[in-house]
Amino acid sequence: MNPQTVDDIILRALAEDAPWGDVTSEAFLPEHARAQASLVAREPGILSGIGVFARVFELIGDATADTLVADATRFEPGAVLATVEGSARAVLRGERIALNLVQRMSGIATLTARYVEAVTGTHARIVDTRKTTPGLRALERRAVRDGGGRNHRFSLSDAVLAKDNHLAVLTASGIPLGDAIRAARERLGHTTHIEVEVDRLDQIEEVVAAGVDTIMLDNFTPAELREGIAIVAGRALVEASGGVNLDTVAEIARCGVDIISVGALTHSARALDLGLDIEIA
Amino acid sequence: MNPQTVDDIILRALAEDAPWGDVTSEAFLPEHARAQASLVAREPGILSGIGVFARVFELIGDATADTLVADATRFEPGAVLATVEGSARAVLRGERIALNLVQRMSGIATLTARYVEAVTGTHARIVDTRKTTPGLRALERRAVRDGGGRNHRFSLSDAVLAKDNHLAVLTASGIPLGDAIRAARERLGHTTHIEVEVDRLDQIEEVVAAGVDTIMLDNFTPAELREGIAIVAGRALVEASGGVNLDTVAEIARCGVDIISVGALTHSARALDLGLDIEIA
Amino acid sequence: MNPQTVDDIILRALAEDAPWGDVTSEAFLPEHARAQASLVAREPGILSGIGVFARVFELIGDATADTLVADATRFEPGAVLATVEGSARAVLRGERIALNLVQRMSGIATLTARYVEAVTGTHARIVDTRKTTPGLRALERRAVRDGGGRNHRFSLSDAVLAKDNHLAVLTASGIPLGDAIRAARERLGHTTHIEVEVDRLDQIEEVVAAGVDTIMLDNFTPAELREGIAIVAGRALVEASGGVNLDTVAEIARCGVDIISVGALTHSARALDLGLDIEIA
Amino acid sequence: MNPQTVDDIILRALAEDAPWGDVTSEAFLPEHARAQASLVAREPGILSGIGVFARVFELIGDATADTLVADATRFEPGAVLATVEGSARAVLRGERIALNLVQRMSGIATLTARYVEAVTGTHARIVDTRKTTPGLRALERRAVRDGGGRNHRFSLSDAVLAKDNHLAVLTASGIPLGDAIRAARERLGHTTHIEVEVDRLDQIEEVVAAGVDTIMLDNFTPAELREGIAIVAGRALVEASGGVNLDTVAEIARCGVDIISVGALTHSARALDLGLDIEIA
Amino acid sequence: MNPQTVDDIILRALAEDAPWGDVTSEAFLPEHARAQASLVAREPGILSGIGVFARVFELIGDATADTLVADATRFEPGAVLATVEGSARAVLRGERIALNLVQRMSGIATLTARYVEAVTGTHARIVDTRKTTPGLRALERRAVRDGGGRNHRFSLSDAVLAKDNHLAVLTASGIPLGDAIRAARERLGHTTHIEVEVDRLDQIEEVVAAGVDTIMLDNFTPAELREGIAIVAGRALVEASGGVNLDTVAEIARCGVDIISVGALTHSARALDLGLDIEIA
Amino acid sequence: MNPQTVDDIILRALAEDAPWGDVTSEAFLPEHARAQASLVAREPGILSGIGVFARVFELIGDATADTLVADATRFEPGAVLATVEGSARAVLRGERIALNLVQRMSGIATLTARYVEAVTGTHARIVDTRKTTPGLRALERRAVRDGGGRNHRFSLSDAVLAKDNHLAVLTASGIPLGDAIRAARERLGHTTHIEVEVDRLDQIEEVVAAGVDTIMLDNFTPAELREGIAIVAGRALVEASGGVNLDTVAEIARCGVDIISVGALTHSARALDLGLDIEIA
Repeated sequence: MNPQTVDDIILRALAEDAPWGDVTSEAFLPEHARAQASLVAREPGILSGIGVFARVFELIGDATADTLVADATRFEPGAVLATVEGSARAVLRGERIALNLVQRMSGIATLTARYVEAVTGTHARIVDTRKTTPGLRALERRAVRDGGGRNHRFSLSDAVLAKDNHLAVLTASGIPLGDAIRAARERLGHTTHIEVEVDRLDQIEEVVAAGVDTIMLDNFTPAELREGIAIVAGRALVEASGGVNLDTVAEIARCGVDIISVGALTHSARALDLGLDIEIA
Repeated sequence: MNPQTVDDIILRALAEDAPWGDVTSEAFLPEHARAQASLVAREPGILSGIGVFARVFELIGDATADTLVADATRFEPGAVLATVEGSARAVLRGERIALNLVQRMSGIATLTARYVEAVTGTHARIVDTRKTTPGLRALERRAVRDGGGRNHRFSLSDAVLAKDNHLAVLTASGIPLGDAIRAARERLGHTTHIEVEVDRLDQIEEVVAAGVDTIMLDNFTPAELREGIAIVAGRALVEASGGVNLDTVAEIARCGVDIISVGALTHSARALDLGLDIEIA
Repeated sequence: MNPQTVDDIILRALAEDAPWGDVTSEAFLPEHARAQASLVAREPGILSGIGVFARVFELIGDATADTLVADATRFEPGAVLATVEGSARAVLRGERIALNLVQRMSGIATLTARYVEAVTGTHARIVDTRKTTPGLRALERRAVRDGGGRNHRFSLSDAVLAKDNHLAVLTASGIPLGDAIRAARERLGHTTHIEVEVDRLDQIEEVVAAGVDTIMLDNFTPAELREGIAIVAGRALVEASGGVNLDTVAEIARCGVDIISVGALTHSARALDLGLDIEIA
Repeated sequence: MNPQTVDDIILRALAEDAPWGDVTSEAFLPEHARAQASLVAREPGILSGIGVFARVFELIGDATADTLVADATRFEPGAVLATVEGSARAVLRGERIALNLVQRMSGIATLTARYVEAVTGTHARIVDTRKTTPGLRALERRAVRDGGGRNHRFSLSDAVLAKDNHLAVLTASGIPLGDAIRAARERLGHTTHIEVEVDRLDQIEEVVAAGVDTIMLDNFTPAELREGIAIVAGRALVEASGGVNLDTVAEIARCGVDIISVGALTHSARALDLGLDIEIA
Repeated sequence: MNPQTVDDIILRALAEDAPWGDVTSEAFLPEHARAQASLVAREPGILSGIGVFARVFELIGDATADTLVADATRFEPGAVLATVEGSARAVLRGERIALNLVQRMSGIATLTARYVEAVTGTHARIVDTRKTTPGLRALERRAVRDGGGRNHRFSLSDAVLAKDNHLAVLTASGIPLGDAIRAARERLGHTTHIEVEVDRLDQIEEVVAAGVDTIMLDNFTPAELREGIAIVAGRALVEASGGVNLDTVAEIARCGVDIISVGALTHSARALDLGLDIEIA
Repeated sequence: MNPQTVDDIILRALAEDAPWGDVTSEAFLPEHARAQASLVAREPGILSGIGVFARVFELIGDATADTLVADATRFEPGAVLATVEGSARAVLRGERIALNLVQRMSGIATLTARYVEAVTGTHARIVDTRKTTPGLRALERRAVRDGGGRNHRFSLSDAVLAKDNHLAVLTASGIPLGDAIRAARERLGHTTHIEVEVDRLDQIEEVVAAGVDTIMLDNFTPAELREGIAIVAGRALVEASGGVNLDTVAEIARCGVDIISVGALTHSARALDLGLDIEIA
């Protein structure tokens, strides 16, 4: 992650959370009181964002955090993940934002790990999608990696992914899909990966023959997936998407797909329960 | 919501999603192709963020959205919530961001409505917390209102909420809680609401006697809540927090509390399933 | 004050004051010359913004300031309030901006203190208004506190204050004021203070009966203020506004109002005369 | 003024004044209520910033302002300077910011006009200084022009002004002032004006002989000013500064100086009393 | 190009070029004077950035441009490429910035076209590098496309390109190159293209065998290029870099490479001579 | 140069170059590998921007640069200008941006020095123009100074320069040029330099008589320049512009002009060839 991106996210969150300062700390707490706190796991999970958590206090100033557990590590309830020490006002000022970030990231990493575990023994990779929280994609993508997943393209700028709606526009414009793929390849730089989504078996040959790097089989049944993979015959990577959940992902993986994309990793992960227990220095 | 805040969120999301443009649209789609699309509900829910959805296309330009259903309205699967019309490139450019925002907001509104419904017949109000997505608080707070909830303080700047950790600092500093409350009241402007959290019955009298506006009873059992309310005796509003979920909220409400705060409204709501179905103009 | 807000104000001021650098220092002063300077009071007053003054040099770099007197302290002409040491170019680069800020803030604190002193012995509190300098509200509100005043709501977002123009809109819309107050209370979160301004005695009962937290009596004569307070009868805080100046404020306070708001604190305070006397290291 | 600069100032002021929206308007006013208002003078003055006033409502949207009087025009109490029409919420949202800006600018223009009037019949010009409100220099400089004054250099970047402190650094560095001036002229671009401040008669010859464009005589008595002007003998423009107020400015002007700089124009002008009278459409 | 990126570049350029407004226009030109102007080619070339040119005036306001020639079109001296009409102040305010941008972009497009032309008849593609002007990459990349070239990766984020310095770090760390490539492939998402630079023939087999998408042969002689291509044997794309100029590019292309990267396209292109001829409306 | 301006340029360049981080370094390089590098001249030139080069690594963090040669110094091929030491990832992350900036600035300084050298022995000064790279003017102007040139006005805000197009507008508006100059002088502050461009000998007398500070003779032949200078007769500075290149500049200078402005200094300078040679620590 770019340090500037992380700082930008934290500074915006801090500004949002206290446009005029923290009236509680200022009115209640002695200016020079110190506090010491521990970030404690209240449920098991995979850690992500511990550096972001610590950075919140660094940016506030007057408080510092020591991280005791590294990102991508599995922990049990009661584990102490980091400690924070500093001015009581600073610690309480940063508490909520620091928790919001690390809870969200660890929630994503933990959910990702469950998907990754579910496909153990297959060669399928679990990847994320663009269904991320607006403004937090860099953090959420990192959380997916911490959970053992891999990232799909970061943005619309760094790889082609032509989906059903793109194909519909081509159809309406009278442009054969194979021609469009070849023209795109011709226009694009050589580093740009081309992936095309299909939702029917009979579309596969045209797409693969035109020379894509990856073909996405959307909402295929396991039987269709196996048939599709046979048609592709190694000429492109195969990605499965749609209808993927913890109940279905293992069977999909066993069909032999290369990649399984799971929107839920980022759009529906639950914040993990981590708490900041404050003792008094 | 401030229009500037909304625009700022959208523009950042658009930049994040395509730092160098949308290579798929540019390489695949004819420059002058048009598209028409419908925002369709795939599950029932309460709408929130329909104006934000529409604004995404307005900011991109070359596409416009008509909203057919108002925020805070309940809808059924299949309902058409809005239509979009414009350049195919612009519609596909905005699709993901527009969906990410309206799905998240509607998810929160829908979850909030379930809580509000669960306490029907009591005088308890469901309110949110500061456990919001960093950078999106304005949207998420609006979504809570659209779901029939009410907002707690917006930020650390606009009301005092002294929690367990603040109390611990006071104890360590040898400052009696009642004194601290009276001193804060003295220092603060007259419009600043003072709320103090307690987690034991024996703390209530000191807090209420010192003159708070609201007392928060954290993680009290129903029996303790009733006893606490009796002690407060109308001298302050009573807020219940902790251990609140859809199974427990009704019983908590029936204890007679004024306010029930629910972190889950914003930190664990699932994105609602809304889709953009694109036809070709 | 949020440190980020302060830094943002200073950095913008520095950029405004030298979009292309300081041609005088660069063309006139040897690159390695050092300077030492003292911030000296040329008239008596109450100090405010000494940390902001020092922060200017910290942000420029190559110079540092030591503060010798704390904010909210009264000083006499000739008092040395801070010293600055560093590169001559840096000291002279920051001089004007640092002075502009501390002079303005101390001017406000000093004026506020005169009002506060004038109401000594009454229980009235002097508060500011939203008539602050655009972009500098955080600093000016702090200056009011340093002068012994208290802050009214910080912004339109953190408390309701319905004024004559709001009431006029209600009238035109055929909405009784009491109904509007009750509806607002119902819609708003429990931490939001509600204040309503009236300019006639006969409006008071309806407003207070509807349940406001504060009633503002605008441009009332002392006799009317006393009568108004009697009608309110402790059911709400009473704020006086309008026609408040150093000649009238004591009498207004003696009427028994709780709060007196004074726009002049921020909109018409004179910059205090503080100078930077530079010696050569 | 650059339109972007003006917009930037307004947008920051609006954000500062309502980070989370205007709770009063939202809770009290019917969403579709309209309002009409007039900007009315409550005291005589010179108008400045009427376009800024109008732009506030344009940026908020849903309201528009018509300006009836042009900047730099003198008006009497009761004069209607502009009208505003639009959504009641938008009009009330913008009222305070729009007033804060136009009151401040008109206050500066009005004060400037008094100085300009006081020197009528002499050839002295009244100019401002860098003692402006941080962040608002563009507006305040425009206000000075609207009041009939002229602007000194805009910033540290666009002209040299070597003051007492610069001279002290030179002395400490053992650099003769004349040498420093000649070296600066050599290094600087040909469009950069060079002005040097002196506070003693015996410094004048060296400065003028070295080739400055303007010499500033700081805190000179009228007699000294006349003597100084005689020494300069037309070889440079002469600026008087220090001790300038409405009581002294005429005599200073009659000494024959070319320019009189007055810090008070911007650092101590009082906001002019203009009000927004709202009728209901 | 993202419209926001273009606007951001223009607005920054306008602010840089007139922090306090355009004193010439304001002091010299009547406020209501109109002007009409033509963008005229003073030398032959390929157009790029005509939309950016027009957008400058749109953002200034009070002036509009009509584009007469499309980007990527070849033109001769004397060709009228666009016309501008509007307030004389606005036209002159925007002239320099609009010209700076279109001249630079057209210079790049024109130079690119010379390279593209030079390799006609081969299947080599001319691509750019990251040697772009800081802050203007989006514009310069577009100019390369307008000149008939193609873009290499946009940034460090969207494709791997391991260069000599990366390889040196690996060596120092005792990591075999093939292992590093395989590990990177394992870690990276499936859409990320992997390219590795080598500068000796004996490095090729290890790199290609490890599975890169493109191999860059840096500073190879034509003979070495041919030998290298034979070793690669179609297992990866081959990019030539280093020592490429208009004298050498054709021979390099005839060796059979797929891609030729040319830093000069962006780092050393000369601004094309285009002028704005203003008539008076 | 303002440190903030420099930082702003670098941070934008870094963000542009890696919106999502550097995938090559992250996937290829061991997290803890260190690197040491030297900035080496591959051709002779004048150094400019060495501080900017170093600042890139400081802003990235985890790497630092030591500068061995000062700006404005002439160097030979092979000269080591700076060394960099730090984390291998940080060094490679910053390499391209740091080089892009110092190569560009040194290219400008080197070209400027050639012009300055060409006019040695005359009293003409070489100055730049506003034909700078949008967003990089501060750096490019500094590079001109490092090359021995001087800067023309920085922006439209800090000096008047009325060019052919301004004169055309005046003509169309029926305003005599002399009147316009006198009116501008009257309106402008005393520090604002006034320069007017003419392209015919018969325009000179009116312009000079009206009292300009500099007259620009545009596209005059040497003979015309001499005649023009005779007409001006010392009443204003004389600037030559148009048709200036390394072949013509000496003759132009020998005509006796004071200033020669050269757009090519910034709009067509070639990036100087400097390389970063990385060894492994």
